[in-house]
Amino acid sequence: MEKLTIVKVGGKIVEETDSLRQLLSDFSKIEGNKVLVHGGGRSATAMATKLGIESKMVNGRRITDSEMLKVVTMVYGGLVNKQIVAGLQAINVNALGLTGADLNYMRSEKRPVTDVDYGFVGDVKEVNAGILADLISKGVVPVLAPLTHDKEGNLLNTNADTIAGEAAKALAKCFDVTLVYCFEKKGVLLNENDDESIITKITPGLFEKYVSQGIINGGMIPKLENSFEALNSGVRQVVITRADLIHTDSGTKMSL
Amino acid sequence: MEKLTIVKVGGKIVEETDSLRQLLSDFSKIEGNKVLVHGGGRSATAMATKLGIESKMVNGRRITDSEMLKVVTMVYGGLVNKQIVAGLQAINVNALGLTGADLNYMRSEKRPVTDVDYGFVGDVKEVNAGILADLISKGVVPVLAPLTHDKEGNLLNTNADTIAGEAAKALAKCFDVTLVYCFEKKGVLLNENDDESIITKITPGLFEKYVSQGIINGGMIPKLENSFEALNSGVRQVVITRADLIHTDSGTKMSL
Repeated sequence: MEKLTIVKVGGKIVEETDSLRQLLSDFSKIEGNKVLVHGGGRSATAMATKLGIESKMVNGRRITDSEMLKVVTMVYGGLVNKQIVAGLQAINVNALGLTGADLNYMRSEKRPVTDVDYGFVGDVKEVNAGILADLISKGVVPVLAPLTHDKEGNLLNTNADTIAGEAAKALAKCFDVTLVYCFEKKGVLLNENDDESIITKITPGLFEKYVSQGIINGGMIPKLENSFEALNSGVRQVVITRADLIHTDSGTKMSL
Repeated sequence: MEKLTIVKVGGKIVEETDSLRQLLSDFSKIEGNKVLVHGGGRSATAMATKLGIESKMVNGRRITDSEMLKVVTMVYGGLVNKQIVAGLQAINVNALGLTGADLNYMRSEKRPVTDVDYGFVGDVKEVNAGILADLISKGVVPVLAPLTHDKEGNLLNTNADTIAGEAAKALAKCFDVTLVYCFEKKGVLLNENDDESIITKITPGLFEKYVSQGIINGGMIPKLENSFEALNSGVRQVVITRADLIHTDSGTKMSL
C-alpha cells in the first residue's frame, strides 16, 4: 500500500498569516500522499464576538446553536479552509477543501441531549473514503474542515481531532497511514519541566507503564487512548509533534 | 459526448430556506451530469452590514477590499456553498463545493486598476477542467462558488455569471454542454409587458433582428452577447429561464 500522512493542526497556527505560511511550507515538504485537517476555534470565537454572539464552551467543546452553526460554517468551511487551500495551491500543492457534506465523505448524527445540549454538534457515524482515496491517489491533497453533515441537510460542528482520527481509520483500508497530531511541545515528555525529554516511542505496554508511573497523566491519557484506538483500527503509526517539525522525523511515535 | 447541464442561479433564490429547498429539488430532477453555480450577494451585503463594513457597488459590481474579501470568502465559500452542498446530499445528489482555488480549477488575475479600483476581484485566465470532468463522469455534482484564486495565495471575488460561462466553455471539451441562466422572467420576452410572450429560440441572425427592432435592448444585449460567445467556444446551447423551470424544457434557447 502507498503511504499517506494525515496532519492535524490546531486553530492558532492556521489563523495567523505568518505561522500559516510556515506551516503550509513545512506541510508541503512531507513526501507523497497527504491530508491536512484544521481547526479554527479562535477565529470562530472572534467572528462570533464581532457579530454579538456569545461563545459558550462546556468541557472544552463549543455549544453550537443555530446562529453559532452559521458562524462556524462560514469560518471553518469558508475563511480558514479556503485560505489554506489557496495558500497550498500557491506552493503547487493541489489542495481540495472539504466539509463532511462534500462528496458525503463524513456523515454524523446530532449529539443526543443529556445533561448538556451541545446543539448542532455531530458524532461521526460513517466515512465514505472511496472517492477521497481515489483523489488522493491522483495527487489531490484534501484539506478537511471540522464540519460534518447528517445527510438530512444539516451541517454539524465536529471536533477536528475526531475528523482526523476517523478519516485516518477509514483511509487505512487503502493506504499505509501515519496520523500526525500537532501539539505545543515537541512530543510527549518524560519530564514535563524539560521540553527536550521527548519519549520517542510508545507501545501499548509502555503506555501502561508510563501511566502507572504518573509520567503520562491528565488530558494526555484520553489523547493517547484515542491514538491507540486508531492504531487498533488499522492506522500504522500516530505521531505527536510540534507543528514546525511535521516534515522531520521527530516527535513521539505510537505504534502497536 | 455525454450531456452536461450547468445551471447558474442568482443569490436571492439560494439565500432563503424555502426557495433554496425548491430549487435544489428542481435541480435534482435534471437528468444526467450537472453543475450548479451560485451567487450570494445579498447574504454578503447583510453579513458585511452586521460587521459594520460598508458595501460599495460600481456598475453592479462589488468593490472588494481586504475586509470585504474575508466576508465573501466566508459567505460564498462557506455559508451559502456548504448549505447548498448539504441540501443536495440530503436528496442524494453527490455535491462537491468548490472555489477556483480548490483543485486549482479556475485561476484568475486581480483586475487592473483603471478609473475604478475593484480591489480583490478576479478576471478569469485559466480553467483546469480535467479533474472536474473526471469527477462529473463519476456522478459528482460540482457546486461552484463565485470565488477564484490567483495561484499566489489570494482568493478573488468573481462574478457568478462569468464562473458559469468559463466553466461551460472549458467543460465543452469533454461534454455536450447546455448552460442555463436563471432570470426572474420565464425567458427573453417579445413584449416586455407580457410575461408569457417568450421567445423560444434565438440564433445569431434572430438576435441581430430583435436588437435592430428594439425587442432585445438594454442590459439584455451584453447578457446574450456573452451567451453567443459561449456558443462560439463550443457550448451547445444556452437557455434563459426562470429558476422554477430549470428541470423543464421551457425558456429561451440560444444556439448557433
